[in-house]
Amino acid sequence: RINGDRLWEGLMEMAKIGPGLRGGNNRQTLTDADAAGRSLFQTWCEAAGMTIGVDKMGTMFATRPGTDPNALPVYVGSHLDTQPTGGKYDGVLGVLSGLEIVRTLNDLGIKTKHPIVVTNWTNEEGARFAPAMLASGVFAGVHTLDYAYARTDPEGKTFGDELKRIGWVGDEEVGARKMHAYLEYHIEQGPILEAESKQIGVVTHCQGLWWLEVTLTGKEAHTGSTPMNLRVNAGLAMARILEMVQAVAMENQPGAVGGVGQMFFSPNSRNVLPGKVVFTIDIRTPDQAKLDRMRAKIEAEAPAIAEVLGVGCSIEAVGHFDPITFDPVLVGRVRDAAERLGYSYMDLISGAGHDACWAARVAPATMVMCPCVDGLSHNEDEEISKEWAAAGADVLFHAAVETAEI
Amino acid sequence: RINGDRLWEGLMEMAKIGPGLRGGNNRQTLTDADAAGRSLFQTWCEAAGMTIGVDKMGTMFATRPGTDPNALPVYVGSHLDTQPTGGKYDGVLGVLSGLEIVRTLNDLGIKTKHPIVVTNWTNEEGARFAPAMLASGVFAGVHTLDYAYARTDPEGKTFGDELKRIGWVGDEEVGARKMHAYLEYHIEQGPILEAESKQIGVVTHCQGLWWLEVTLTGKEAHTGSTPMNLRVNAGLAMARILEMVQAVAMENQPGAVGGVGQMFFSPNSRNVLPGKVVFTIDIRTPDQAKLDRMRAKIEAEAPAIAEVLGVGCSIEAVGHFDPITFDPVLVGRVRDAAERLGYSYMDLISGAGHDACWAARVAPATMVMCPCVDGLSHNEDEEISKEWAAAGADVLFHAAVETAEI
Ligand SMILES: NC(=O)NCCC(=O)O
Ligand SMILES: NC(=O)NCCC(=O)O
Repeated sequence: RINGDRLWEGLMEMAKIGPGLRGGNNRQTLTDADAAGRSLFQTWCEAAGMTIGVDKMGTMFATRPGTDPNALPVYVGSHLDTQPTGGKYDGVLGVLSGLEIVRTLNDLGIKTKHPIVVTNWTNEEGARFAPAMLASGVFAGVHTLDYAYARTDPEGKTFGDELKRIGWVGDEEVGARKMHAYLEYHIEQGPILEAESKQIGVVTHCQGLWWLEVTLTGKEAHTGSTPMNLRVNAGLAMARILEMVQAVAMENQPGAVGGVGQMFFSPNSRNVLPGKVVFTIDIRTPDQAKLDRMRAKIEAEAPAIAEVLGVGCSIEAVGHFDPITFDPVLVGRVRDAAERLGYSYMDLISGAGHDACWAARVAPATMVMCPCVDGLSHNEDEEISKEWAAAGADVLFHAAVETAEI
Repeated sequence: RINGDRLWEGLMEMAKIGPGLRGGNNRQTLTDADAAGRSLFQTWCEAAGMTIGVDKMGTMFATRPGTDPNALPVYVGSHLDTQPTGGKYDGVLGVLSGLEIVRTLNDLGIKTKHPIVVTNWTNEEGARFAPAMLASGVFAGVHTLDYAYARTDPEGKTFGDELKRIGWVGDEEVGARKMHAYLEYHIEQGPILEAESKQIGVVTHCQGLWWLEVTLTGKEAHTGSTPMNLRVNAGLAMARILEMVQAVAMENQPGAVGGVGQMFFSPNSRNVLPGKVVFTIDIRTPDQAKLDRMRAKIEAEAPAIAEVLGVGCSIEAVGHFDPITFDPVLVGRVRDAAERLGYSYMDLISGAGHDACWAARVAPATMVMCPCVDGLSHNEDEEISKEWAAAGADVLFHAAVETAEI
């Protein structure tokens, strides 16, 4: 078993970097706080005898060598970046549990045949630069490096410039590494494990996603002197489209979600009807056909809703992945480990996207999950217990070491 | 008659200060551009032989003396500040037409019994610091100076600090001046005069207004892994409240408007359901009972709509004025002037709020309006013709000089 106290201390130590306003974290990707988090992680890895490689997306790979020079490494990891109002565990738990595995192997003097590589993927969250899971996406060949470098944050700064600014452009070609397997441990970010009183989620699938960015063009006009029948009201069109997105998600129950997280009014003045409204839609479901139907319906209905009001509507897809089925052999190994260790467990579909989803395109991959209080994540109040954290890390340890072969 | 070419040249000259992105202006109150506009206006007034007084709200009063030392001045004016995406005429036309009256009187060698004071009120727009018509509101005793100084812009800067920063804190007590009458010339900012092919609006009333600021409190949560039935979705509550505001305005047709200009999502991240949504509602009607009913309905229904979704809702009133009836004698003088000068005219209710609405509480007051293309205002594309501008300035000239007595 891993050392749950040591794992927890690391989580609390990392949470001091880029603190949030209410006890969580704001350590967004490619900020100074991200750079500080990376340095701390590097120090810990080197102290555990690992060597660090960095690729051109800034992703960090900390290697513990194996005994067979020809064996491909087993990768474990997740991400250290957070949402603007993020929790202390989302991503960090997976990275530091990878480190904890290596420390435990060191303590026990165990060598594995395959090297073990603990990974910190850059910009998993996608909060600052859309889309999410950007570095693992480039790694898996879903995006080009040029595409990734050109992503902009809300202030117009590019990913490429910011990566250079914080000094984490590595020399490795992205995706050049070959993986024997990829295992990621993450908090559930949803309410199911807690509701079912299970310690371990055996993740069999991940739901698919579309991120749509909607731009509505109305007519800036005075809120007082413009009669109702002469308004070209982009704000009203937005309200109707939000209600429609909700309806599309509800029609597709069970097993579908839809919502809006980001909203910009322009010129955003009290006495001006907005000339432009830009917002994002996030729809997800594990069912490929349903995902396509939901997208098609939203892309058909939003412009129709806008048109009734004379409002222009354009929609751009800014993020996407199809539903993922994880590798059955690895999934079985996770399930067996939970059983062997005496933890309660259940099969789970991941509601959130993860770097494992992209890694699954280039290697056998799967995930382990632990519950989080009230299913809350992307919220500074995100919480887990030390025992929950340790149980999942134990399962990751067993499944990863079994895959890496002693 | 006034000199229409000279008036137009002044408008074009002032429009060079704080240019917008698409041909209009961004000369928001208490910015460096506002300071530059004030200096230019001061130069012009001094060249026309006037002396400038400034009060503690930064409002500028340029005086052309009268012949009777005991006669109270006739005030004409409006404002030089603009919306973030404002036009070249909203406010500026009224201030520069006041100057044009004085220049014309100088040209003609005419002296008036009452002094004439051309006024530039600070922060009419209320775009940067709510509420609108802030300085005239303090002048009329509706707000205290302390209240005004404490208003904050979206960056948290206070009105008091910004007024000091641009160097326009005057020494006059606000409201110490007594007025014989107040006349304001403004573009209509609505479509009626153009639709009716009239050159002059004789403004008999101004509709009343409530500005409500709504704060919705939901639960920040992951857009992917939070099932629909566990969401506390402040964004959805916002959408439903916008639709309700629209319905309340439509129920009260004709003669009522309602809309939303400003919107803030928090944390405003694509994959986070907003924990907080703040937005503003603007409702107006010339009918006092209707205005009260509309406000009561919105204040009752918004929290009920939010409650269904488990969302918290608080509403703060951040701006208000009752419907105004302008002084019948002055209104008659404007109507007679239009008739005498041979301009087409009609009675009009102002859709927008104006400094004249507050001035009307402390002096006989009224307004003159000219059409604007497509009724468009609070939009960089706001447009009028030189002839329209001149016609209204002629009417203002006649009505003001008749009031100031030769
Ligand atoms: N795990 C996680 O929150 N990833 C960010 C991408 C997503 O929104 O699913
Ligand atoms: N005239 C004008 O646009 N005033 C600003 C206050 C209002 O919104 O009516």
